[in-house]
Amino acid sequence: MNPIRPELTPALRDHALRVERVLDRVLPPAGAEPRGLHTAMRYAVLGGGKRIRPMLAYGAAHGLRASIECADSAAAALEIIHAYSLVHDDLPAMDDDAMRRGQPTCHVKFGEALAILAGDALQALAFAVLLTDPAGVTAPARGVRMAAILAQACGSGGMAGGQAIDLAAVGQQLDEAALERMHARKTGALIRAAVVLGAIAAGCDDSGTLQALDRYAAAVGLAFQIRDDILDVDGETAVIGKQRGADQARAKPTYPAILGMAAARELCEAQRSVALAALDGAGLQADQLRDLAHHAVDRGH
Amino acid sequence: MNPIRPELTPALRDHALRVERVLDRVLPPAGAEPRGLHTAMRYAVLGGGKRIRPMLAYGAAHGLRASIECADSAAAALEIIHAYSLVHDDLPAMDDDAMRRGQPTCHVKFGEALAILAGDALQALAFAVLLTDPAGVTAPARGVRMAAILAQACGSGGMAGGQAIDLAAVGQQLDEAALERMHARKTGALIRAAVVLGAIAAGCDDSGTLQALDRYAAAVGLAFQIRDDILDVDGETAVIGKQRGADQARAKPTYPAILGMAAARELCEAQRSVALAALDGAGLQADQLRDLAHHAVDRGH
Repeated sequence: MNPIRPELTPALRDHALRVERVLDRVLPPAGAEPRGLHTAMRYAVLGGGKRIRPMLAYGAAHGLRASIECADSAAAALEIIHAYSLVHDDLPAMDDDAMRRGQPTCHVKFGEALAILAGDALQALAFAVLLTDPAGVTAPARGVRMAAILAQACGSGGMAGGQAIDLAAVGQQLDEAALERMHARKTGALIRAAVVLGAIAAGCDDSGTLQALDRYAAAVGLAFQIRDDILDVDGETAVIGKQRGADQARAKPTYPAILGMAAARELCEAQRSVALAALDGAGLQADQLRDLAHHAVDRGH
Repeated sequence: MNPIRPELTPALRDHALRVERVLDRVLPPAGAEPRGLHTAMRYAVLGGGKRIRPMLAYGAAHGLRASIECADSAAAALEIIHAYSLVHDDLPAMDDDAMRRGQPTCHVKFGEALAILAGDALQALAFAVLLTDPAGVTAPARGVRMAAILAQACGSGGMAGGQAIDLAAVGQQLDEAALERMHARKTGALIRAAVVLGAIAAGCDDSGTLQALDRYAAAVGLAFQIRDDILDVDGETAVIGKQRGADQARAKPTYPAILGMAAARELCEAQRSVALAALDGAGLQADQLRDLAHHAVDRGH
């Protein structure tokens, strides 16, 4: 699958291409031992994907008028974490998905043991990438802060905790508040970390600006999730890269299931307003972040 | 199982008790949501264990005549990484072990999905603990360096890579060099990181001292592994906490299988000499590190 989506603006497409090159460079070569593990790691990360988190990190760095290469390590680390989480979420003991981005999932291709280890090694790699970033090493207080934020976003209070809540919720009746709490951890924490890491990488330490960016990111993260749920009902399998109706078939709670389709669309639209409002008056060069908010709500896959 | 071994010196036993308190404090409370995940994480970490890596970190800090609380975060982070690796190694797709430390393994107790997630969340927690350490925050260059070393030790060039090599080696004929390369990654990398992290936490940045400690740790790590292999043949199930002969039954390559028992014992003994020699002339207060080298070779479980 080509990670470059036609509906993205040229600047956002450039960011997606940029992180692809960074990822290719920081991932261990497939020819280095242990080859099976390295091949699986590269497959998990380089096999396409929307590269939303890197685009958010680059968008924040651009928003602060920084040269965007300052966010390269953060962008790559965020995407590596995201890729590891997908590998583990797809495992038979978890969501048991055989297809991802139109390709066999990592455990289908390489076996469960290597998929578990590839995820584990990718998590470690994300921290290694962030902590050996030249900018972080020359400004170590910044490096410590960024890596600590990433660690919090991945852990039991963030992404891993959200997946645990999600698994426990299968077949349960959740209300909207409970669904939002689950997504706030499962996907929201890392999306918020993406924007904040991009800003810190760009040298931002103004708490007002960071808070505005965080409000923006929370709304964009929720919009992405609601839109995903809507596309699971509406989208075509060939376009979304997985089976349409997969969430419904698995009795996963979704926004359309809880609110109905019309109210889900309205809630998604409301997140666009919240995200754009958060950017207003923050003094940012916010064109790319605005484009990403529109993309979250309007995308067709 | 009581983590405090009677054959340890009082100082080493104090270190094992000390890290137990730190771990209890840094692990999320079992009552915090998501409770299932937090309960599994606590079970995986607090269910006993030899606490070798913390003892090595504290031993190195003591060796540098530092007050040992400087190594608390490093000691806890190292043990959390070790615990996560055991949870994942025990999974059905990996070594498929039902018992660990005389108790049901994490996936037997909590299910595979929570065991995978507990491991994932523990890895993130280890970095969070290390990166929010007050000493690292006030001396961020030290924090960045320690976390980068930990990330390298856990990744595909270290622990996770070693497990991949180990899995690929089941049923294969390895020679001694290949077995040593596997263990150097699977367990050696984290043991070396333990000693180096303890030293850096204590403020050491002398490369000669760090290299001496690294040589010491590589030998101690290998001694531990050879002794484990010997105990798998020789030990009693009730004492070693797992089935005697488990490695043999699984056709895992071991030192006694490759070298014979007498040569395996000799090789283990040789590591003691290498470890003690590395400490000589390094200007360290090396009593605890010496005791740990003796323990590695002489322990009965």
